[in-house]
Amino acid sequence: MAERTSRRPELLVRLARGSSEPLRQQIERAFREAIRSQRLGPGCAVPSTRTLASDLGLSRGVVVQAYDQLIAEGYLLSTPGAPTRVSGAVRAPAPEPPEPEPRSAEIDFRPGEPDLRAFPLEAWRRSLRAVLSDLDHRWLGYNDPRGLAGLRTALATYLARARGVAVSAQNIVICNGCAQGLSMAGHVLRRQGVRRVAIEAPGHPDIRHILAEAGLECVPVPVDDEGLRVSDLEPQRVRAVVLSPAHQNPVGGVLAPHRRQQLLAWASQSAGVIVEDDYDAEYRYDRVGVGALQGLAPERVLYVGSTSKILAPALRLGWLVAGRPFLEDAIETKRRLDNGSPAIDQLTLAHFLDAGELDRHIRRMRVPYQCRRDALLAAIARHCPRWRVRGAAAGLHLLAESPASVDIDRLVQRAAEASVRLYPLSRYTVGASRRAGLVFGYARLTEREIAEGMRRVGRALRS
Amino acid sequence: MAERTSRRPELLVRLARGSSEPLRQQIERAFREAIRSQRLGPGCAVPSTRTLASDLGLSRGVVVQAYDQLIAEGYLLSTPGAPTRVSGAVRAPAPEPPEPEPRSAEIDFRPGEPDLRAFPLEAWRRSLRAVLSDLDHRWLGYNDPRGLAGLRTALATYLARARGVAVSAQNIVICNGCAQGLSMAGHVLRRQGVRRVAIEAPGHPDIRHILAEAGLECVPVPVDDEGLRVSDLEPQRVRAVVLSPAHQNPVGGVLAPHRRQQLLAWASQSAGVIVEDDYDAEYRYDRVGVGALQGLAPERVLYVGSTSKILAPALRLGWLVAGRPFLEDAIETKRRLDNGSPAIDQLTLAHFLDAGELDRHIRRMRVPYQCRRDALLAAIARHCPRWRVRGAAAGLHLLAESPASVDIDRLVQRAAEASVRLYPLSRYTVGASRRAGLVFGYARLTEREIAEGMRRVGRALRS
Repeated sequence: MAERTSRRPELLVRLARGSSEPLRQQIERAFREAIRSQRLGPGCAVPSTRTLASDLGLSRGVVVQAYDQLIAEGYLLSTPGAPTRVSGAVRAPAPEPPEPEPRSAEIDFRPGEPDLRAFPLEAWRRSLRAVLSDLDHRWLGYNDPRGLAGLRTALATYLARARGVAVSAQNIVICNGCAQGLSMAGHVLRRQGVRRVAIEAPGHPDIRHILAEAGLECVPVPVDDEGLRVSDLEPQRVRAVVLSPAHQNPVGGVLAPHRRQQLLAWASQSAGVIVEDDYDAEYRYDRVGVGALQGLAPERVLYVGSTSKILAPALRLGWLVAGRPFLEDAIETKRRLDNGSPAIDQLTLAHFLDAGELDRHIRRMRVPYQCRRDALLAAIARHCPRWRVRGAAAGLHLLAESPASVDIDRLVQRAAEASVRLYPLSRYTVGASRRAGLVFGYARLTEREIAEGMRRVGRALRS
Repeated sequence: MAERTSRRPELLVRLARGSSEPLRQQIERAFREAIRSQRLGPGCAVPSTRTLASDLGLSRGVVVQAYDQLIAEGYLLSTPGAPTRVSGAVRAPAPEPPEPEPRSAEIDFRPGEPDLRAFPLEAWRRSLRAVLSDLDHRWLGYNDPRGLAGLRTALATYLARARGVAVSAQNIVICNGCAQGLSMAGHVLRRQGVRRVAIEAPGHPDIRHILAEAGLECVPVPVDDEGLRVSDLEPQRVRAVVLSPAHQNPVGGVLAPHRRQQLLAWASQSAGVIVEDDYDAEYRYDRVGVGALQGLAPERVLYVGSTSKILAPALRLGWLVAGRPFLEDAIETKRRLDNGSPAIDQLTLAHFLDAGELDRHIRRMRVPYQCRRDALLAAIARHCPRWRVRGAAAGLHLLAESPASVDIDRLVQRAAEASVRLYPLSRYTVGASRRAGLVFGYARLTEREIAEGMRRVGRALRS
């Protein structure tokens, strides 16, 4: 391959003399790219420093420096008494496929997101500005992996008041959204020797994936309109269960009082651990919100919450509340997973909470969310009269079970053709299910969009 | 325990009539706290709604609502025809120990942190303000778990130019600092069937902990002044190795050119994976910085970097560069670990990079860091003349090996008495080591502090 050196070096190295990039670096970059792309193959001798310098009209020192750098980095090999050659160690990458364009349907009933257009941007900016004007270098180092004390204190007050959580600032570990909270809970369970954990079926598939990544095997336990069937949990002989008592995802059941008692008795008798995913707990339409299960047994429950459904998922702010038996493991897990969450975001949320902005936002959204739910219920009754609605009492989504005669996959396809995106229940099933239907998120859509979307669904259903 | 009901209810429930908290909620809170603290024990009958309402001077409806809430949450049990009782399921938490106060030594040679007083706060604020004024709801949902495209594009340009990384925006997964980058690399290796991974010895203990949390067994391989001893790696029959070629932590060696070739040959022959922790790569004092190993074999290297050593650890911003064989697993891992990093921080870093602020900051810090290193070298030569310095050519720390006659633990203790905090090499050893010494971080201290600190170390050494 040595004849390749007969190629004129200026074909290899194109110097831009007016550029701010030093000539030496331009030479290095040209060689790196030529070697990676195999234009200069392994073993190929490169021009001597003298030749290249003279061809490029440069002082030899510049080329010597560039070659030294390429030798230090491993692109070139220098052997005493022989020409410098291209290393055989370089492995060229193949070209990447183009990045897919995000598609968006016109009316999208995707569940799991709040109304982002209603995000209290001005209030968040005010908090962020206040934080920025006070920010100094003491916040910028490696902070307590649990999170900043100011945020933990503000959250403890909020969670005790709004969610009935038995908590002090010391029991909170700040994390990156609910996903990391569940991941951390999974790692804590592993550290405590748990290998199998019960999950709700149907349930969001991410929960199983997150727990699997943490090294746990998941055992599905069925849910009904009253939440997890605890009597089906008991024979499974698992030491832990992950559930969302406030609003089951996707069926929408709220864990009934007698099930709560039964679950706590299970935990107490079998030294079981309850991971409470306090999903969708803030919005309850038929009655005052029910406080967290955690408040009843703080030493048996790992409590997970986040701002994703009340503010915005992109903030990636959540919390794990861990009682004393789990606290050290939870902190160490967070340290090992990412050594703490970003400081500026934490300071901003603390300011936002202390200013009462979170309460204000939740209160303000109650009416529009209830109106959207009502619009959806009315539209389902009108366009899908034989469907049965579940889980409409709380949260930001509901389940509409379809009659046996409906081919859900075909309906989803037809609706997509009419620019309506639907989410079949089958996405949530762990194993087989007797039910079929659609999960509707209504928080992100206006009443008009909901009505129009369901009109198109009705048309697709009849066609 | 039923006689407890003879206790006057106003002792149980203290109403604050002027408070903004509704009376019903005050009653609920009082009961929750009384039940958790065992002032109302399991099975204890509570006053009838009529009695409590009359004793508190309230309408009965308010008490009925409060009791209903407490029953729904599981604090109280209602049995038809019998008095309402306290549930036996409530498990009271024990009181928490007080949070420890952070201690700080007067002169602290802690390695691993840049000079936070020099953080470019004004430039960061400018970027954050620009982001805030443009922020709209489209950024606020669940974003691509890889990170925002704008930041990945800006980083790809930066990494290719400054670190010689072979990268496009599509190969980058944004993560929370180097810790999560390594954790993700560990999870990716697990997904690819790797169970044992080689690490540098001595090395930072966190690396082993992070990889263990990801489910990997660590096999220590010795390092010397030329970095990892690749000939000791080969017999271990591992499929992956984690190392920091730019500046080994703590010994400070830079992986020598022949070791780079040897390591790439190992990876190529054994289908091995190299996890490159590009630690401390930006500062090199004896020569121009050496580009990343990743550039030579992008499909065999998982590359990890972060802003922690160049800007501030509290930002928790890092990146994993994954070639095609690892990319899908890396994205899925990030999705499962926390479903993406916070958006506002990403947008801010993208703006900061595009404005050239990162280059400017790194360039500006080169002189003070070199001056501090020189001050430390001079002070060691003066006060610890028989010690041998290693790893001073790059990075923000160096290793000073002590003569056999020095009792390091005693020296650390004596220095602490003189308000100087020192970091023994033994903290980094995996298994036994022939060496003893101290690891000095010098980035955070002024030249004056370094001189004074070492004067005190010298005194402690002679005493």
